[in-house]
Amino acid sequence: MTDSLTLKEICDHLGGEILAGSPDSVITGVSSIQDAGPADICYYGSSRYTGYLSTTKAMAVLVSKPVTTSADCVLLVDNAYDAFRKVLHLFVPDRSTGFSGVHPSAVVHPTAEIGKEAEIGPCAVIDRDCTLGHNCSIGSGSVLGSGVILGSDCVIHSNVTLLADTVLGNKVVIHSGTVVGSDGFGFVPDPRGEHKKIPQNGNVIIGNSVEIGANCTIDRAVTGSTRIGDHTKLDNLIQVAHNVCIGRGCFIAAQTGIAGSTVVGNGVVFGGQAGVGGHIVINDGAVIAAKSGVTKDVRSGITVSGNPARPHMVTLRLGAAVSRLPGIIELVKEMSTEK
Amino acid sequence: MTDSLTLKEICDHLGGEILAGSPDSVITGVSSIQDAGPADICYYGSSRYTGYLSTTKAMAVLVSKPVTTSADCVLLVDNAYDAFRKVLHLFVPDRSTGFSGVHPSAVVHPTAEIGKEAEIGPCAVIDRDCTLGHNCSIGSGSVLGSGVILGSDCVIHSNVTLLADTVLGNKVVIHSGTVVGSDGFGFVPDPRGEHKKIPQNGNVIIGNSVEIGANCTIDRAVTGSTRIGDHTKLDNLIQVAHNVCIGRGCFIAAQTGIAGSTVVGNGVVFGGQAGVGGHIVINDGAVIAAKSGVTKDVRSGITVSGNPARPHMVTLRLGAAVSRLPGIIELVKEMSTEK
Amino acid sequence: MTDSLTLKEICDHLGGEILAGSPDSVITGVSSIQDAGPADICYYGSSRYTGYLSTTKAMAVLVSKPVTTSADCVLLVDNAYDAFRKVLHLFVPDRSTGFSGVHPSAVVHPTAEIGKEAEIGPCAVIDRDCTLGHNCSIGSGSVLGSGVILGSDCVIHSNVTLLADTVLGNKVVIHSGTVVGSDGFGFVPDPRGEHKKIPQNGNVIIGNSVEIGANCTIDRAVTGSTRIGDHTKLDNLIQVAHNVCIGRGCFIAAQTGIAGSTVVGNGVVFGGQAGVGGHIVINDGAVIAAKSGVTKDVRSGITVSGNPARPHMVTLRLGAAVSRLPGIIELVKEMSTEK
Repeated sequence: MTDSLTLKEICDHLGGEILAGSPDSVITGVSSIQDAGPADICYYGSSRYTGYLSTTKAMAVLVSKPVTTSADCVLLVDNAYDAFRKVLHLFVPDRSTGFSGVHPSAVVHPTAEIGKEAEIGPCAVIDRDCTLGHNCSIGSGSVLGSGVILGSDCVIHSNVTLLADTVLGNKVVIHSGTVVGSDGFGFVPDPRGEHKKIPQNGNVIIGNSVEIGANCTIDRAVTGSTRIGDHTKLDNLIQVAHNVCIGRGCFIAAQTGIAGSTVVGNGVVFGGQAGVGGHIVINDGAVIAAKSGVTKDVRSGITVSGNPARPHMVTLRLGAAVSRLPGIIELVKEMSTEK
Repeated sequence: MTDSLTLKEICDHLGGEILAGSPDSVITGVSSIQDAGPADICYYGSSRYTGYLSTTKAMAVLVSKPVTTSADCVLLVDNAYDAFRKVLHLFVPDRSTGFSGVHPSAVVHPTAEIGKEAEIGPCAVIDRDCTLGHNCSIGSGSVLGSGVILGSDCVIHSNVTLLADTVLGNKVVIHSGTVVGSDGFGFVPDPRGEHKKIPQNGNVIIGNSVEIGANCTIDRAVTGSTRIGDHTKLDNLIQVAHNVCIGRGCFIAAQTGIAGSTVVGNGVVFGGQAGVGGHIVINDGAVIAAKSGVTKDVRSGITVSGNPARPHMVTLRLGAAVSRLPGIIELVKEMSTEK
Repeated sequence: MTDSLTLKEICDHLGGEILAGSPDSVITGVSSIQDAGPADICYYGSSRYTGYLSTTKAMAVLVSKPVTTSADCVLLVDNAYDAFRKVLHLFVPDRSTGFSGVHPSAVVHPTAEIGKEAEIGPCAVIDRDCTLGHNCSIGSGSVLGSGVILGSDCVIHSNVTLLADTVLGNKVVIHSGTVVGSDGFGFVPDPRGEHKKIPQNGNVIIGNSVEIGANCTIDRAVTGSTRIGDHTKLDNLIQVAHNVCIGRGCFIAAQTGIAGSTVVGNGVVFGGQAGVGGHIVINDGAVIAAKSGVTKDVRSGITVSGNPARPHMVTLRLGAAVSRLPGIIELVKEMSTEK
């Protein structure tokens, strides 16, 4: 963690241009434009925040085009949001654990292969035949079942559960409380109610640079694999059912659920609390609005919303029509009476 | 785990009839009809998959009636889906833990009574006065509070929490991250905002052969018990509030929530992300469609959908009417102008 | 835990008046009016339960006004629900752990400062530079990251994860499986799908007397803090995104999600499965009905419902209009034909 940097040092790091302010100004923190203090740098990225340009107490503001602002320093960059990201990296607080290496209270089965520079926290459990690439970090209390495979540079936070035969690529991040590889929900219904469980013989395969939030559940496949593609990012409390196949570079917001065997293409975006039925295909680049209930295939690139989900323009049009309905009913009643 | 079986061996196990193919054909795996490889057996269970009958690469297909297929072998059985279940059992992969018995790192209170053939994983914790029947398996990092009672043959996966006084029947399966016996949500509201907690003095009682998915929450009762009946199956991320009473043989899909004191009969089916208010009665055999918001009692055997939930036929009829609404509004406007 | 009390002892404790029954009657338990046994005390708090007054098997009933009842004893109090709360406290069952003090299997970093009378359960982990006030209880398997600060009298149940730099006030209760301080969901989207993570440099600050249910997720802020105000109560499986600021004395029912940077005032009530978009302001005393989807600011004191959420009266009016729509369409068709 950096304690302070000059405006020039930050500018050199970002490759930007100082539009206003002294290169020697000392920055000690990063903040939002509304909450910034007098030694902070912030960014201006959306017209929603224009009002704060003249009231911010920040010393410096990152912008993508020249602005008038109460901040002393203005730093012009190509992409203010991406520059903000880079500056946050410069000021990442030290949150390192006080425990190092493989903690003595961790339980690592002798058949597990642990790569170099591993950090395995207290009370973590690594079962037989696990394989961890180099530079993996396993948080306290996390459990890896038998035969779990991790690539390199994975970060498994505390109290995560990766069940048997789960496979992770490189640079995968999994947040606390998430469960990967729980049994899919499959039973042969019985008329007397004594439903019989379908064994879930498959596993979960997660690609490179995937990030999965906290308290998610990713079920293993009946046969074959439940899959999440490279660079896909999941928020918290998300359900991914057995045999779901999610593509590359998707964003899935919190509390979304995707039912069994559904296929999600590349670059698909889900708003929060969306739900998708089973055996559905969502094609590349589609956008599923928050709280949508998707009941049939979604074409590439379109936005759907509502429950049942329809093209967003249709949902809006029907919603507007419903808003006018009480007035229309009055009008119809009048016309009916007049006759 | 079986590595391979002949078609005849599988046929003998299932009690079916070989319609096509050699009894000596060697099967090495189980798969879906679309993903099967040349040594796999699969099943054909729905007209949705008819197209795959002629393209599948499977060696063998389980069917409930004769079909024409690209697979070499065809095995006729009474119920293809149930036969698939049985074949999956034959080929269940070995996911056994490398740790055996009560692991030395598990913490078992001396007053706990542990049945024969127990498996208690590393860093599991069993508090005072717990009683476990024979052949129970407690996963790594799971915690059983004081006075928890388990019947026989229960499987508690890793990182599960069963709080004090929780009672489980026989053959209960609980997946990772699930919490049973957390306090119900009850407070006496205070006008100054200093709400006072209602002690939750009750517990949770779960019947025989219940399966609960990952990261669910089942709250303890205020007084008496929150109950889940025999053979009921819960998917992941489900909320069951205090004093809810769920009957026998129900299916509850992921992310459903059931509010306090609601009574669910036998054989009720919930789609995903359904919500049920408090103090409601859902009668035997009702079906609650995905994303429904149930605000009043549901009669036996009917299907409800929508928010607020109505009989499904009504929801469909209103939905169809809304779809026509923009056109109707145009028509009314015209009629109004013409007059 | 009390095994039994006389009616007089209970009456003296509550400060009420015995309207019927002997002061020497012995009460051995607390129950609901419908489930009470012959030695139980219950309360009558809502006209929903009037029918049970004449059928209850309870020995005693707490009432706020005189009633006719099958119970032998009637105890008049100012607020029957609050009296019920107090009686439940008298009969709280003993669920104490059999482990005491700091369990030898807990891993406490030497730099952590643990207040007096701490209970730290088996396999709990407390990382460097944590500070716990006096009389805190940390459940088995819970993990506190580096620099976590707890006030006094906090109860952290089992298998909770508090990530680095989380700050809790006094008398905070956190139920099992909850994750506080996981990274917020922030990425700079990349057209090739290789999205870049925004470091989440902030933390979570939770006020006094806050209670958080099981398996919730409260994300840390990008910069600054995600905040939950004093006396606010969260149910289970709730998502609170980064930089959300929740006021004082709110109630949030299960499976609700609040997206990033949204501000919730004081005394706001959320029904279950509600969703609120990002960067929204919900003012003091607003009520968000169950399953609402809030897409814009909500004024103080109003109730909103539906998706998109509107004032509840509007939602009801539109719902009633839609219910009439099929009939209206028939009428319009007739009128159109008649012309």
